[in-house]
Amino acid sequence: GRGEVGHESESENILSGFKTSTVLSDSAREKNIFIHGKLADQDAVVILEKTPIREDTLAEIFSGSRLKLEMRNDIYCTYQLQAPPHLNEIKTTVVCPATEKHVKKYQRQESSLVEETGTDYQSITLPYIQKQSFSVQWVYNILEKKAEAERIVYEDPDPEVGFVLLPDFKWDQKQMICILIAITHQRDIRSLRDLSSEHIPLLQNIFQKGKEAILQRYNLPASKLRIYLHYQPSYYHLHVHFTKLGYEAPGCGVERAHLLADVIQNLQSDPDYYKNRTLYFPLRADDGLLSKFREQQC
Amino acid sequence: GRGEVGHESESENILSGFKTSTVLSDSAREKNIFIHGKLADQDAVVILEKTPIREDTLAEIFSGSRLKLEMRNDIYCTYQLQAPPHLNEIKTTVVCPATEKHVKKYQRQESSLVEETGTDYQSITLPYIQKQSFSVQWVYNILEKKAEAERIVYEDPDPEVGFVLLPDFKWDQKQMICILIAITHQRDIRSLRDLSSEHIPLLQNIFQKGKEAILQRYNLPASKLRIYLHYQPSYYHLHVHFTKLGYEAPGCGVERAHLLADVIQNLQSDPDYYKNRTLYFPLRADDGLLSKFREQQC
Repeated sequence: GRGEVGHESESENILSGFKTSTVLSDSAREKNIFIHGKLADQDAVVILEKTPIREDTLAEIFSGSRLKLEMRNDIYCTYQLQAPPHLNEIKTTVVCPATEKHVKKYQRQESSLVEETGTDYQSITLPYIQKQSFSVQWVYNILEKKAEAERIVYEDPDPEVGFVLLPDFKWDQKQMICILIAITHQRDIRSLRDLSSEHIPLLQNIFQKGKEAILQRYNLPASKLRIYLHYQPSYYHLHVHFTKLGYEAPGCGVERAHLLADVIQNLQSDPDYYKNRTLYFPLRADDGLLSKFREQQC
Repeated sequence: GRGEVGHESESENILSGFKTSTVLSDSAREKNIFIHGKLADQDAVVILEKTPIREDTLAEIFSGSRLKLEMRNDIYCTYQLQAPPHLNEIKTTVVCPATEKHVKKYQRQESSLVEETGTDYQSITLPYIQKQSFSVQWVYNILEKKAEAERIVYEDPDPEVGFVLLPDFKWDQKQMICILIAITHQRDIRSLRDLSSEHIPLLQNIFQKGKEAILQRYNLPASKLRIYLHYQPSYYHLHVHFTKLGYEAPGCGVERAHLLADVIQNLQSDPDYYKNRTLYFPLRADDGLLSKFREQQC
């Protein structure tokens, strides 16, 4: 029961009775897996995650393991190494009984890459966005200082080229990872697709003044910054992300992010680049826009 | 020696004689560690990375493991799990003899974003690449079937538009993360910068046939693939990366990756796009190219 906080102890293997229903998600990169199933007739979520490799165990791993050669090419060899189990543990978390909320929390949605021509944008995406009329009231609250005013790092109040720069609220501001967002005062630019050469001064202003403000406030030079837009964005009011290079921010992958510097160059060489260009982006399986694409493209 | 391309086999534990000098870097998130040391008096780099947890081994892990209770609180328990060694392998890569370059490559370093105009490429980057003359012998071994021949997933032997598709050796091929590389038979294309409209047929061929081969072999449709090039690449022989969407492959960030579909579109609208365009990419603090940029741009 509650309060029996365990000192490390041998326990019967309660997992030998666990019946897997489904893998909710897993990460090959992080070496973890989230599993939904039954433990003695109760719903349970079991999370397995391999432990990091500790420097102080290396000597014992090298001397006490079995090796199987996999591949040899030039100076490179790869092996499968079987380490002594006590040096290679798996951190295991059991949530039992688990509610539906636990199950949903750990469930991953697969994404599919969508190909959107300029025409697709007009006939599929734009009508979908307009019909959904996602609220961006929280953005207007920021721009009007009705909320989060004390969090603003920098503001250029100009109605044409101005913007507000503030920390993304995913960032606790303790880690030096630096996640900020610049939100434009102009309210009629939904996304990359609405940009044309007339917006170059706005974009250059965000690029320059954003970098300066971050250097002043966080002492981070421009060469340490990844400055980009998302397409599709998570809300349809133009905003630019600033994150620290080296921090692999979710959404900074090539399939969704567009470097602001590239966007400016592209608009300089072709004013209608983002009106006509085919753009690629991932959509989650449960995204309504994905269904619209599937209907129209089949 | 060379040419003894390994079929999986038991090998003596060559690592029992490995003497660690220093840990170059490690990642608690990714459960890997990069170690510099000596193997029979030769410099060597050893990379250990825990393998992802496979769904098809879960039942055996649950029934065949030992559990130690760590913590119990309300509906949450955590355990240390000791799995049977054959279900919990550590992927091991040995580079031996390792050059100073290998050691540097794996050493943790901060990166800086570099801005490279077309002129910078000609005056700074190209001379640097030519002077370094990085060996791509291992690439030629693959193209000539002197190594890794049995790993080839698909080949188009055409000397102009042909390529070899094979799993990246970061990938153990058990996980459905799908990391493959297409290497061109053409040997004179160093990178994105060398591409012009004449290469569109080559790029389209890789795009189409690569997708088809991956669908056939791995049953993964194109909509689940991220297909991209790196700039700067890690070796100067043109190659294209295929990774599964949802797997956050290292190097798939917007600051280094270029979607093949975008590259093709850009070359279609401007044959010299990659000759003239300013490109941005991160370079590590110890990269000789970064020093060259700092010298010339100050």
